[in-house]
Amino acid sequence: MNAELPHVVIVGCGFGGLEATKVLDGAPVRVTLIDRSNHHLFQPLLYQVATAGLSAPSIASPIRHMRRHQRNLTVLMAEVAAIDKAQRLVELGDGQQIPYDYLIVAAGATHSYFGNDHWQTHAPGLKTLADAFKLRARLLSAFEKAETLADQPARESWLTFVVIGGGPTGVEMAGTLAEIARHTLRDEFRRIDPSRAQVLLVEGSDRILAAFKPEQSAQAQAQLERIGVTVRVNCRVVGIDETGVDLQLPGGGRERIESHTKVWAAGVAASPLARTLDVPLDRAGRVIVDEHMNIPGHTEVYVVGDMAAAHSQEKDGSRKPVPGVSPGAKQAGRHAARQILARMQGRSEAAFRYQDYGSLATIGRKAAVADLGSIQFSGFSAWLFWLFVHVYFLIGFRNRLRVFVDWAWAYFTFQRHARIVVEPQHHGDQDEA
Amino acid sequence: MNAELPHVVIVGCGFGGLEATKVLDGAPVRVTLIDRSNHHLFQPLLYQVATAGLSAPSIASPIRHMRRHQRNLTVLMAEVAAIDKAQRLVELGDGQQIPYDYLIVAAGATHSYFGNDHWQTHAPGLKTLADAFKLRARLLSAFEKAETLADQPARESWLTFVVIGGGPTGVEMAGTLAEIARHTLRDEFRRIDPSRAQVLLVEGSDRILAAFKPEQSAQAQAQLERIGVTVRVNCRVVGIDETGVDLQLPGGGRERIESHTKVWAAGVAASPLARTLDVPLDRAGRVIVDEHMNIPGHTEVYVVGDMAAAHSQEKDGSRKPVPGVSPGAKQAGRHAARQILARMQGRSEAAFRYQDYGSLATIGRKAAVADLGSIQFSGFSAWLFWLFVHVYFLIGFRNRLRVFVDWAWAYFTFQRHARIVVEPQHHGDQDEA
Repeated sequence: MNAELPHVVIVGCGFGGLEATKVLDGAPVRVTLIDRSNHHLFQPLLYQVATAGLSAPSIASPIRHMRRHQRNLTVLMAEVAAIDKAQRLVELGDGQQIPYDYLIVAAGATHSYFGNDHWQTHAPGLKTLADAFKLRARLLSAFEKAETLADQPARESWLTFVVIGGGPTGVEMAGTLAEIARHTLRDEFRRIDPSRAQVLLVEGSDRILAAFKPEQSAQAQAQLERIGVTVRVNCRVVGIDETGVDLQLPGGGRERIESHTKVWAAGVAASPLARTLDVPLDRAGRVIVDEHMNIPGHTEVYVVGDMAAAHSQEKDGSRKPVPGVSPGAKQAGRHAARQILARMQGRSEAAFRYQDYGSLATIGRKAAVADLGSIQFSGFSAWLFWLFVHVYFLIGFRNRLRVFVDWAWAYFTFQRHARIVVEPQHHGDQDEA
Repeated sequence: MNAELPHVVIVGCGFGGLEATKVLDGAPVRVTLIDRSNHHLFQPLLYQVATAGLSAPSIASPIRHMRRHQRNLTVLMAEVAAIDKAQRLVELGDGQQIPYDYLIVAAGATHSYFGNDHWQTHAPGLKTLADAFKLRARLLSAFEKAETLADQPARESWLTFVVIGGGPTGVEMAGTLAEIARHTLRDEFRRIDPSRAQVLLVEGSDRILAAFKPEQSAQAQAQLERIGVTVRVNCRVVGIDETGVDLQLPGGGRERIESHTKVWAAGVAASPLARTLDVPLDRAGRVIVDEHMNIPGHTEVYVVGDMAAAHSQEKDGSRKPVPGVSPGAKQAGRHAARQILARMQGRSEAAFRYQDYGSLATIGRKAAVADLGSIQFSGFSAWLFWLFVHVYFLIGFRNRLRVFVDWAWAYFTFQRHARIVVEPQHHGDQDEA
């Protein structure tokens, strides 16, 4: 590559970073894409890996393989420690410094425990493949542990699952867990009855799926209850430890739920890399960017996706926040890359406008809710729509085919092919798996 | 289940334990199968998981799902800490004691570093899925690390792979690694040329695949060299550290190989559980068993598979050691279970006779060696035979189909679909992935 071409560095290969990379294919720039992992992850289906429905390679592809034909691209698997915007340098974890002419930061988000970081050990979240394997091991091992115990109350605390947070991820996890208990594990245990497992979905506000219309929240709750999930709204989690969860009830009272297996789906915060930019952040730690995804005073630095607090310039002149979903990250990534190419030619793109295609959340084996703006629907038709959209957007022909075959199989047999606990795991053991 | 029926406890669900369990299906006994993991693993294809050709669920099935129709079987996922043969008790890691009337111990083998246990960190072996993920992360991350480095000698030490031990596993690993470097990663790197990676196969004796005929060892070595593996026979490993391997050469000299990525395929030892039986062991820690797989003085205790030093009663009256391969474990497991049923009726089976179907080892994408006793062949025909045998014996229709599709795809595209590093990993980082 010509070393005199402008150097665009992209940090993070989620939806935002990957789309930006694609826009720059063939452009007169050198591109370096840096990610701490070697793969792009299709995060919307990560809960399926955690619940043993899909294997990891079905939803993850090696970045350098996906983009091997992009000749102006170098992919580096490395940790980014900090960004020096004055010197225009990206600092890697091993001390290397990488100079840039343009920078797109798309390092995503991590879990937020609202100041209770010690909850993380007991209620892991779901952002990476490592998280998914950890959760899978805990969920499956809980049934195994219950089978080994003679004591009935002890068994019950191993057969109680608490999902914290009623957003799409929490709803998906709770629905799938109920299915596993009722159907997947049927006839496989001798001492316990897995279908008597309790699955609780705890939400602090007054309804689940707050991004949807209230009727749809109600429909989703009814669908969850039909498959055996206990939905608890207006319940705030005030404590999490190894053996249970403490709730604050609507009336102000307290309730203790004995449960060894908790899943955190309640809060996210921007990657800590945001802090090294030394610019204003919002409460969730996100970088406040302008209409071109730039940070203040640096038209060469862009932040996109879950790391950014971005706004869409609506036709009526108003400004609407861009939601933290994959279409938002993709569109912002494309905008940043196009704006770099425009600036190189002394032009500028129009202000970023978010194209809203609607919201989708799946509940279980054949239920979902969809809000496409002008139309809302739920149940089986929404589930088919959800299935189509997710398989369509999944990376690569190969993975689409695999996932489709896995799901067709699972649908008709109730089986989940990836029920593998890599390392034996009980709480108190080490967390990696 | 009728609590008055004799209780057979089986420890370990590898090939030996699983076959014993199957023989007891429908028999007038209660069976408890205890394994530290939740899955039966098809170990002959584990190297494919380590080299990103297969995903873990393709070669592993949940034990309780496989045997869900066996009504006299209880499956427990638990660690066995010790066996008390005087009291007839199996002690679990959590302190529970499980009494037995008959016991089949089939806990398999682990790596042996011949007294150099500190080598394990630097040169992991390949026995479990966790091992396979660890190796996969190291192998793929080595290429990634080399791409991030500017220094040429440092790059080369990350692009040098040393496989220690020239048995079937070592040959399979070395051959597949050479293919990955030459074909799978082609065109994907910008700063390094992965096809220039060095793959060394180090063997202490004078030929690889010592279980085969000398001509076949020579053919296998020629095939490995054709695909780019450097085979070093008569070289004893005398040191392994983070950055390399020290060899003792045939003439007595020393040689240092700079390499960050080492694979141990040299030695195995019986599970440490063998020691708790307090009976005579051989040098590899295996339990010396009689013609019915019993330990001395305890006709109710059987040891089978890689944990046992067993002999076959040949037709000519001679006794031949049973090799540590899956047919040996399967046949011994079946024998032990049948002998239990015979004893319950006051009978005895004939002494164990091992049925030898031959040996098979694969070298790469289309080469293998086969020794079926009366006939030896190698090359493409042996590879097709190897493929057929392995897919045929793989657990479950579903997995067979998946593996077959994965291989057909890999064969024609040179691609390996499971190239996922779950957690970023370099040496010095924590080892779990």
